[in-house]
Amino acid sequence: MAEYKLHCFAQSGNAYKVALYLTTTGADWDALFVDFFKGGHRSEGFTKQNEMAEVPVLEHGAETFSQSGVILDYLTETTGQYGAKTDRDRREILRWLLWDNHKLTANLATGRFMANFLPEDKRNPDVTNFLIGRAKAACHVLENRLAKRDWIVGGTPTIADFSCIGYMYYEDEIPIDFAKFPAIQAWKGRMAELPNWAHPYDMMPGHPLS
Amino acid sequence: MAEYKLHCFAQSGNAYKVALYLTTTGADWDALFVDFFKGGHRSEGFTKQNEMAEVPVLEHGAETFSQSGVILDYLTETTGQYGAKTDRDRREILRWLLWDNHKLTANLATGRFMANFLPEDKRNPDVTNFLIGRAKAACHVLENRLAKRDWIVGGTPTIADFSCIGYMYYEDEIPIDFAKFPAIQAWKGRMAELPNWAHPYDMMPGHPLS
Repeated sequence: MAEYKLHCFAQSGNAYKVALYLTTTGADWDALFVDFFKGGHRSEGFTKQNEMAEVPVLEHGAETFSQSGVILDYLTETTGQYGAKTDRDRREILRWLLWDNHKLTANLATGRFMANFLPEDKRNPDVTNFLIGRAKAACHVLENRLAKRDWIVGGTPTIADFSCIGYMYYEDEIPIDFAKFPAIQAWKGRMAELPNWAHPYDMMPGHPLS
Repeated sequence: MAEYKLHCFAQSGNAYKVALYLTTTGADWDALFVDFFKGGHRSEGFTKQNEMAEVPVLEHGAETFSQSGVILDYLTETTGQYGAKTDRDRREILRWLLWDNHKLTANLATGRFMANFLPEDKRNPDVTNFLIGRAKAACHVLENRLAKRDWIVGGTPTIADFSCIGYMYYEDEIPIDFAKFPAIQAWKGRMAELPNWAHPYDMMPGHPLS
C-alpha cells in the first residue's frame, strides 16, 4: 500500500495542488477516486472524513487531513521540500495560500465549473461573467507579482506556487485570455519543468475521456 | 503612538476579524481609515503596502502584514492569546482559516456587498442569489460544526473563531435567515461576551451614519 492516499478526481484543481506536489517530490502515493459529479463528496462515508465535503483529503498513516493548504503545509514537514526557509517566508507563503483560496481559486474554479460542468440549462451567463471577472482581477495581482520574480515567495518554488497553480492548466476550460498574462504563462512553463510534471487529467482518475 | 496600527474601515468584516482580536486581547491599537468606497484600497500609497489591494493591513514596528489569517497568526505570537496549544490544533485552526476564506467569507462578504453596497442600477439579483446560496451552504457546514461544540477548534476561543465571525454581526445586511442557524447564533452570543466586544460599526471608522 502506498504511503500517502489522496482522495481526488481529475477535474479538481484543489486536489491537483496536492497531487502535483506528491508527484514532483517523488512521494509514494495512490489516488482514491471521489465521484464528485455523482455527489461522492457529499456521501456519508466521505463527510465522515471531511465535514467540509471537499476534495482533497489526504490519508497518511493514522492521520487524515483536509484543505489543500493544510495538506501542503504538512507535506513540507514530512518531505522537507518546497517549504519556508525563514519565519518571514512562512508568513509570506501563508499570505499567498489564503489569497489563493479567497480570491484566485474561489473565482477561477467556480467560474470554470459554471462555464463547463453545470448542465447547460442551469448555466447563468451573468453569474459566470461575474466570477470570471473576479478571477481575472486576481490574475492581474498574480501577474504583477510574477512580472518581477520567478516564484511567488523567495527564489525557489514553494507550496505557494503549488497552491496558486491549481487551476491554471485547465486553461481550455476557462473563458480567460491567458495570452494577456505573460508572466503567469512563463511561470506555468517553469512549474511544468519540475520533475515528473503532468497535466491534472493525466495525474488523477475520473476524466470523462479516460 | 499606538503599538499596532490597523488599516481598516467599518464595513470590512475582514478588518473586523483583526480589530475584534486586538480589542479583546487589550492590545494598544489605532485604526487608520481606508476609504474603500472611494477606491482607497487601490491607491498607489496603499498598494505599495499591499499589492493585493485588500484591507486589513497591520503595521507593528517596522513590520507590515496583510491577510487577516496571517495577521491573526502573527498576533497569537505577540500576544500569546487565542492560538493553538498543540500542533494538531494549529493545523485544525489553519484548516478553518482557509475554509473561511474560500467558502464562508468569500461568499458572505461578496453577497452582502452585492445586496447592499453596489449602486442599485448595478445590482444583479442572479449574482447576489448565487453568492448568498453558497454562503448559506457554508453556514450549514459551520452550523453542524458548532452544534457539537462551543468553539470551532478545541475547548476555548481561537483565531479560527475570530476569522469565521468576521461578517456575522452584519446580519441585517445579509439576506440570510440566521434564525435557521441556532448554533451559529449561540456562538455569536458567546463571542459577544469576550472582553470589550463591540459591533464592527462601533469599532472601526467610516460608517456612513457615524
